[in-house]
Amino acid sequence: MCRWLAYTGTPVLLDTILYRPAHSLIDQSLHARMGVETTNGDGFGVGWYTPGLDTPAVVRDTGPAWNNRNLREIADHVRSPLFFAHIRATTGTAVQQTNCHPFRIGRWLWMHNGAIAGFHEMRRDLALAVDPRLFPDIEGSTDSEMMFFLAFTLGLEQDPPGAVGRMAGLVEETGHRHGVEFPLQMTVAVTDGQSLWAFRYSSQGMSRTLYYSTRVETLRALHPDTAFLRDVSDETRLVVSEPLGDLPGAWNEVPEGSCGVVQPGADELLPFAPRAP
Amino acid sequence: MCRWLAYTGTPVLLDTILYRPAHSLIDQSLHARMGVETTNGDGFGVGWYTPGLDTPAVVRDTGPAWNNRNLREIADHVRSPLFFAHIRATTGTAVQQTNCHPFRIGRWLWMHNGAIAGFHEMRRDLALAVDPRLFPDIEGSTDSEMMFFLAFTLGLEQDPPGAVGRMAGLVEETGHRHGVEFPLQMTVAVTDGQSLWAFRYSSQGMSRTLYYSTRVETLRALHPDTAFLRDVSDETRLVVSEPLGDLPGAWNEVPEGSCGVVQPGADELLPFAPRAP
Amino acid sequence: MCRWLAYTGTPVLLDTILYRPAHSLIDQSLHARMGVETTNGDGFGVGWYTPGLDTPAVVRDTGPAWNNRNLREIADHVRSPLFFAHIRATTGTAVQQTNCHPFRIGRWLWMHNGAIAGFHEMRRDLALAVDPRLFPDIEGSTDSEMMFFLAFTLGLEQDPPGAVGRMAGLVEETGHRHGVEFPLQMTVAVTDGQSLWAFRYSSQGMSRTLYYSTRVETLRALHPDTAFLRDVSDETRLVVSEPLGDLPGAWNEVPEGSCGVVQPGADELLPFAPRAP
Amino acid sequence: MCRWLAYTGTPVLLDTILYRPAHSLIDQSLHARMGVETTNGDGFGVGWYTPGLDTPAVVRDTGPAWNNRNLREIADHVRSPLFFAHIRATTGTAVQQTNCHPFRIGRWLWMHNGAIAGFHEMRRDLALAVDPRLFPDIEGSTDSEMMFFLAFTLGLEQDPPGAVGRMAGLVEETGHRHGVEFPLQMTVAVTDGQSLWAFRYSSQGMSRTLYYSTRVETLRALHPDTAFLRDVSDETRLVVSEPLGDLPGAWNEVPEGSCGVVQPGADELLPFAPRAP
Repeated sequence: MCRWLAYTGTPVLLDTILYRPAHSLIDQSLHARMGVETTNGDGFGVGWYTPGLDTPAVVRDTGPAWNNRNLREIADHVRSPLFFAHIRATTGTAVQQTNCHPFRIGRWLWMHNGAIAGFHEMRRDLALAVDPRLFPDIEGSTDSEMMFFLAFTLGLEQDPPGAVGRMAGLVEETGHRHGVEFPLQMTVAVTDGQSLWAFRYSSQGMSRTLYYSTRVETLRALHPDTAFLRDVSDETRLVVSEPLGDLPGAWNEVPEGSCGVVQPGADELLPFAPRAP
Repeated sequence: MCRWLAYTGTPVLLDTILYRPAHSLIDQSLHARMGVETTNGDGFGVGWYTPGLDTPAVVRDTGPAWNNRNLREIADHVRSPLFFAHIRATTGTAVQQTNCHPFRIGRWLWMHNGAIAGFHEMRRDLALAVDPRLFPDIEGSTDSEMMFFLAFTLGLEQDPPGAVGRMAGLVEETGHRHGVEFPLQMTVAVTDGQSLWAFRYSSQGMSRTLYYSTRVETLRALHPDTAFLRDVSDETRLVVSEPLGDLPGAWNEVPEGSCGVVQPGADELLPFAPRAP
Repeated sequence: MCRWLAYTGTPVLLDTILYRPAHSLIDQSLHARMGVETTNGDGFGVGWYTPGLDTPAVVRDTGPAWNNRNLREIADHVRSPLFFAHIRATTGTAVQQTNCHPFRIGRWLWMHNGAIAGFHEMRRDLALAVDPRLFPDIEGSTDSEMMFFLAFTLGLEQDPPGAVGRMAGLVEETGHRHGVEFPLQMTVAVTDGQSLWAFRYSSQGMSRTLYYSTRVETLRALHPDTAFLRDVSDETRLVVSEPLGDLPGAWNEVPEGSCGVVQPGADELLPFAPRAP
Repeated sequence: MCRWLAYTGTPVLLDTILYRPAHSLIDQSLHARMGVETTNGDGFGVGWYTPGLDTPAVVRDTGPAWNNRNLREIADHVRSPLFFAHIRATTGTAVQQTNCHPFRIGRWLWMHNGAIAGFHEMRRDLALAVDPRLFPDIEGSTDSEMMFFLAFTLGLEQDPPGAVGRMAGLVEETGHRHGVEFPLQMTVAVTDGQSLWAFRYSSQGMSRTLYYSTRVETLRALHPDTAFLRDVSDETRLVVSEPLGDLPGAWNEVPEGSCGVVQPGADELLPFAPRAP
């Protein structure tokens, strides 16, 4: 089990979102409320976009986020309009940088909370389904990275919801072939640096929690005294594994089997289901 | 807050004590029951004696114990008649190897759970009280290491309970001078490779938990079917921050203000109080 | 490029071999003389057998060997009749524990110095040749680990020289199919805890250096005053990437295209060549 | 021995200076040409100022710079008008984050190449000379950090060259009292985020190398085709342990016993000598 957050909107210091909220992601690394495990201490990562640069930065390390000084330094000094942060609780794969999220291919970032049930047994079959040109770039041993490479293979750059749907379909088909009843459990965030897609799905229909923040205009009307809300644009949006802090009206559950799209213009909430790969 | 255990008796693989019990120390690194904090993920250490060698080995690292593969390897392959293990939850000082327990001077090992209240302010005064010949060997920045160096300065090699008492007296005197009402909170284990001294004391009389195992003979009569008890000698003894597992009759609280001595011949439980340094 | 050593014989503290010689492996981590690179600072590992235990211990870490305190502690306190040690200089794959040597499958240890030319491109083809039951246990991303899994797939447990020969044949065949003229460069050590096989081979016939120690009886006659030689049995043997120290007559080059077998009874030096997989 | 560089001028990606030059600092971490040791693999650090923020960021880690992916990411994505970078070769003190340079107090950064001869013996005397209000903030165990705290104690904020002179005087006086003939060997860089002071001094008059870059105007005339020179302002200046790359006319040795001041307006090169503390 893991926890993650995705931010897009007015450029802010990462600290504003990562450390300052009452129940921040860093706090969740020690005391998650809604997870299967309360501790997420098996590595962390942050990926951020810088206006004018082609690819996002990705900084990852293998210790707990809560005591990492370099993360604290970066959060206090880096400003970004779009960033991902992830804290990891391994389900058995090695604790190493290449198993930490977010993962990056070109301009794209990907992070995941959940698991492929029976991944160990299916690993070879799934690896064979990865585009042979991409295969050599798999660096770690997680199901999460494999899902990213499969989604990329299946058209992520052209059609993110479709590609993630085909990836989910492939994982379920492979799982069923291996005798696994409910192969997939996932909340996933993916971005190309412009739009953000967030998915909540599980084969069993009992997905890990996922929340998105209420429109800033609405929140501002509800909480006219909250300084942060005055400083950010109407386009600002957060998607998180569990709510940060307790601002009434701020958080909305992403429904089971959904894909949220945060994009220039109106955001969307679409139904999501696995497709034939 | 931290957790620790000390083992002395029949040589066993470290694994037998560190990983196998139901509520093992490694389990406590994620889920301590009796501590102020449930997570002890800011480093760990193990120190062990090998018959025929002069000094104990000390292996320490900065990540959590629960996911450390090298600790697992060592535990599975090293056998020792006397070893210490410690998992750390920092109260603010840096997460670095030189702040991990156990600490070693010559043949001696020391580990600690607790804190000196106001240590930041008293650090200089306490450092000045360390024997100038020992001072340059202080490598870390914790109160725990400073307590060890003070106890060594005050005669640990000649009279462990007396030296620890004088160290406690010095810390309290220094604390009071700095306006701290209850300066010391400690459970400490110290050994020279032959005997083991365990202390439970706090200025306020509300010390962290500490337990010692019941005599093996008695336990064997109570639990004739427990294999481990048949394999170890009558001299075998454990001192732990919290009980490992739930064997009825196996664990006894070290009383407030006490010093337990595990030694060749009859063990002892002595009253402990700070002394004039 | 990397450096390694393998020791088998009278049980000694690892320190005796790892740190004490004038040009020890630890010294080679900073100042290799015969390597392509002088610095081997991208991780290290040590694997050792303990009489009475089924599997060898493997301790690996990602920093340089020369400043690692835990390695120093283990070397000073662990005694073994058979151990491997390896220092790594990455040619591009991630610096992570699962890419450090030695690798272990069951009772077997494997370590490697060299490279598969064009490995990035061949990685998928080679991965597909691994026994599907073993495939999910590949944890890292190196050519070295892949070679071990291929050798295991091709019969390492039954016939080590044959299996390594078939692995080399498979790598060369795959390389040639990818247009690589000289695909393989290797010195490899492998053991099951009883015998030790050491290979020196490269497609181009220009292999990395490899040396074995002279028979202890002979050396003892040459150097009657060398204490170490008096303390070890006639069966004691070392295989190393470069000589440790400058004892005249102590080191012999393993010839190009050879396999040395160190075993109970007479040791052997066999010709080695790739075979049809 | 260590290597460092300090950059001030037109904001650039750290990569421009840290990785791109032919003989970059990262290259020097493996292959220093002018140092006592060729390898600087015992940790590294980078400190940078961000316009609009009060304090500089400091990211440090304990492994080698040459294989650190997070450093690479930061360098590729962070732009700064003033930054320090340092690669460490320990002379014996622990390899830990709190011993890595640059050190920070408030807005100030400090880094050092060199050593205090006999530091182990003098450590207590020097520690006692640190302002008691600053003493508790010493986190590591190096001579370099101690020098920074002493300079701060002796007026660094008011008069950097004077304070560093008094620190040097104190170190020499203390060393002589301990029977050390040549106590100090240093090249130091220190900044408050506005100006940069660089010192080259040693008690013996045989200081480690130090270079500053030629005025950009002059270089631009010499090398009209070098793109980097067209992109940076006339105020841009580098101070480095050894020249980066081989641009003729680009590098000038800082003379023995000197202090260079890079500041708004004309830079200065002043004589430097220890003073009575």
